[in-house]
Amino acid sequence: MTSIVRNQWYVAAYGSEVGRELFSRTICGESILFWRTESGEVTAMSDRCVHRRFPLSEKPSHLVGDTVVCGYHGFTYGSDGVCVAVPGQTRIPRTARLKSYPVVEQDSFVWVFIGDPDRAASTRIPRAPWLDQEGWTTVSGMEPLAARASLLVDNLMDLSHETYLHGGYIGTPEVAETPITTEVDDEAGIVYVSRHMADAACPPFYSKSTGIEGRITRWQDIEFTPPCLYKLHSRIAPVGVLPNDDGSDPDAFHVEVVYAITPETENSTHDFWAVARDFALDDEEVSDFLRENNRTVVLQDVVALNVLEQVIAGEADGYQELSINIDTGGLAARRLIAKLAESADATAVPAAR
Amino acid sequence: MTSIVRNQWYVAAYGSEVGRELFSRTICGESILFWRTESGEVTAMSDRCVHRRFPLSEKPSHLVGDTVVCGYHGFTYGSDGVCVAVPGQTRIPRTARLKSYPVVEQDSFVWVFIGDPDRAASTRIPRAPWLDQEGWTTVSGMEPLAARASLLVDNLMDLSHETYLHGGYIGTPEVAETPITTEVDDEAGIVYVSRHMADAACPPFYSKSTGIEGRITRWQDIEFTPPCLYKLHSRIAPVGVLPNDDGSDPDAFHVEVVYAITPETENSTHDFWAVARDFALDDEEVSDFLRENNRTVVLQDVVALNVLEQVIAGEADGYQELSINIDTGGLAARRLIAKLAESADATAVPAAR
Amino acid sequence: MTSIVRNQWYVAAYGSEVGRELFSRTICGESILFWRTESGEVTAMSDRCVHRRFPLSEKPSHLVGDTVVCGYHGFTYGSDGVCVAVPGQTRIPRTARLKSYPVVEQDSFVWVFIGDPDRAASTRIPRAPWLDQEGWTTVSGMEPLAARASLLVDNLMDLSHETYLHGGYIGTPEVAETPITTEVDDEAGIVYVSRHMADAACPPFYSKSTGIEGRITRWQDIEFTPPCLYKLHSRIAPVGVLPNDDGSDPDAFHVEVVYAITPETENSTHDFWAVARDFALDDEEVSDFLRENNRTVVLQDVVALNVLEQVIAGEADGYQELSINIDTGGLAARRLIAKLAESADATAVPAAR
Repeated sequence: MTSIVRNQWYVAAYGSEVGRELFSRTICGESILFWRTESGEVTAMSDRCVHRRFPLSEKPSHLVGDTVVCGYHGFTYGSDGVCVAVPGQTRIPRTARLKSYPVVEQDSFVWVFIGDPDRAASTRIPRAPWLDQEGWTTVSGMEPLAARASLLVDNLMDLSHETYLHGGYIGTPEVAETPITTEVDDEAGIVYVSRHMADAACPPFYSKSTGIEGRITRWQDIEFTPPCLYKLHSRIAPVGVLPNDDGSDPDAFHVEVVYAITPETENSTHDFWAVARDFALDDEEVSDFLRENNRTVVLQDVVALNVLEQVIAGEADGYQELSINIDTGGLAARRLIAKLAESADATAVPAAR
Repeated sequence: MTSIVRNQWYVAAYGSEVGRELFSRTICGESILFWRTESGEVTAMSDRCVHRRFPLSEKPSHLVGDTVVCGYHGFTYGSDGVCVAVPGQTRIPRTARLKSYPVVEQDSFVWVFIGDPDRAASTRIPRAPWLDQEGWTTVSGMEPLAARASLLVDNLMDLSHETYLHGGYIGTPEVAETPITTEVDDEAGIVYVSRHMADAACPPFYSKSTGIEGRITRWQDIEFTPPCLYKLHSRIAPVGVLPNDDGSDPDAFHVEVVYAITPETENSTHDFWAVARDFALDDEEVSDFLRENNRTVVLQDVVALNVLEQVIAGEADGYQELSINIDTGGLAARRLIAKLAESADATAVPAAR
Repeated sequence: MTSIVRNQWYVAAYGSEVGRELFSRTICGESILFWRTESGEVTAMSDRCVHRRFPLSEKPSHLVGDTVVCGYHGFTYGSDGVCVAVPGQTRIPRTARLKSYPVVEQDSFVWVFIGDPDRAASTRIPRAPWLDQEGWTTVSGMEPLAARASLLVDNLMDLSHETYLHGGYIGTPEVAETPITTEVDDEAGIVYVSRHMADAACPPFYSKSTGIEGRITRWQDIEFTPPCLYKLHSRIAPVGVLPNDDGSDPDAFHVEVVYAITPETENSTHDFWAVARDFALDDEEVSDFLRENNRTVVLQDVVALNVLEQVIAGEADGYQELSINIDTGGLAARRLIAKLAESADATAVPAAR
């Protein structure tokens, strides 16, 4: 049984990854070809020639204007995936068209819809506006994860692991010690997990980038919109400094940590991560520091989760985990994802392949 | 279900590969040991000792005169595969004999019969006489292909791919543009595909080796004898130069391109290729040029077909290809191979293993 | 169907391998964590945290006194595997305990019981006292084998392979030529195989370490206690020199070759080997020579058995071996192992996992 939820939008790439070079990425088990038209629109179509299934992203396949030419026998397709030329004859078979995917460029991401295209327009694309907004500076990356997406969801929904796995980076004892509050908005399909530390050590990660000395008030407010988009609203301020009654918060530092968790296959994941900040906007040194340190933290997770995937692959069926309070958010996320999967299945019509 | 046709002769090696060193190759899924007797005959027997299945091609196994001694416990076999000595006792069990294979050396190849040995003598071995004949010079090689044999058959039966995959080598626009004629001789079990280009660009591959300047008449006459032997009779001449009425053709250049397509396993293939020419016979420079360039072209196919094998491995069942006119020859070849497989199955008796 | 016999003691490690670093080894398919308490006791527990199955041997997991702290979320366990701390709450779930294994340190080995722990105390641990005894000097090692344990049992029970696979090391023609006697003590569950060579060449392996010149009397007395412990009592003396009537044997050289054959998985094995001698006790040169040469011999077996495992993986079902006199001991060993497996199955209760 698949663990991948269909009929959903997923992040396929950063917009900056897609240009006039043929670009292929497997999203939810489907090999998809991305390229930009001469006018700059992102296209998304199946990365398999209809003739003998040669990948259109493989050399010597190439773009000619707004068409892509297969490198094996020269079948040629327009930006909508429809075949416009075949070798040795002028008649083009009516069925010669590539599956084409709904695609939207938003918040620095390329989103692609996996499932029944007719449902794309009515399906929510969650937002992460800071990644592409005046007043914020963002560093970002993508790390390939050789583990199922659910392991990354588990990981991010329970930040008490920061104390152990990321000790010396973003983890301090207070993270694991401070209780969390979890809220689930079933109607909106969002899980919230909050951990407000009133008086905590400042991890080097933040002291170096904000310049704060001494202890801090540290808020971690998670907002996860299954199946794909995870946001950590992070607030750091000197101890005791709170937002004003009108919501303004000039003496605090805000960091929006965004993850897009996109299944590549059942057992591998594209781990997109981005860190947006509202301070030191033009300070390259702070950008370099945050990029380097956040990537280190992401790779610590990648190493641990890749190990877990191997552990699961080798274990007997029916293995039982043991869950405690810190897992409330993760278990809620699993429940929402299962609900989405169920609803996608219920309305599924057999796919023409 | 296997895609390998049994009760057929296959090319196992070039004769030059087999000598007084133990040589093993897997043909149609069977591990076969080859060596030459002291009088020069090629032998072919199972590469598994009857005792504890140690491969006789593995060191420290070795030849002693016309016997091969297993490197694990010393079981010793004659050139007919019959055991002649065992350790620790003088009595040799009656059943101690290796499966032995009918083998024929012809046209520079070592042919081996896969299936019921009693059918070997009555089964055709197709010919490629130029490879070992006065008046012709041959360059040749073998490239391991990590793809099923049928993908190479498809590839070679439809040369319109030369224009795209081998552009700059043997492909020019005329190849893909010129229509083909296909003939199937069901009785003889041969597929013919012809493409006669009356006025075509001369690919660098040929201009450099023949010295022709300007445009050419280029004939490509394919003759495929399933399941294994593919011949491309290639004729190049200055534009308008045709053979004489008596069949002589002194002003043209002839190249016989021969492929032996031997399944190693269901998903891998030995890709034997040879190029014989009737001109510049002693010109080493032309030989070097043809060897280098033909190998480059073969490796372009190998890269593409290895990709296709991976694509097939990863795709859902029931994937549908789309075929057009250029595929007529390839589809005919598939049909003849299926017919051979059927007839082999119909007469098969359960094999004693 | 598993080929691994449960409800038995297996060698998991040399005592010298286990200290204050976390050490993990897979024994009979179970990942087991080993470490020594501050007072020096060896502990053995499951290498999977009960929370999210993170391996406790993976960094940044670490020891704190006599507890091990999981590197993912900080679950902490005592030397008995019982959880003593979890993050974010003070209540520790009653079921939070790691599976713990009966463990015994004896004859330089760490033995671990695989199966129902209640049967550990009543199950025999075979002895190899020389490895840890006054009057003997031992060299030893462990080589990972990518082959099922039964292939190593076969190999060691039939030493006629020494002549072929280990020619120039421990093999001479007399080994394969001399008949063996085999005895099976069904009650004690032990197979004995003896080969007494009255007048044999002295392999370089022994001439260099004993200083004997000329031909020797060479006895090889195998004693195998399934499923795990193999002993070769080896006696080398100048030709004609026999033990005294009272059993003393001052003019001979004795070597005890011990193998512990521990399944890692169904298809891989820990190949522990040790060579104890009662001569040249303090001669480092002899130790170096024996260590180097014995390891070479073991690796020759490893290479051959790894090949056999691959051969088995690729062969059709129902393959038939052919056995002769030399295989009597190996076949007896297989029979005893099958009997142990049957008896373990008969009494097995479904495991709670």
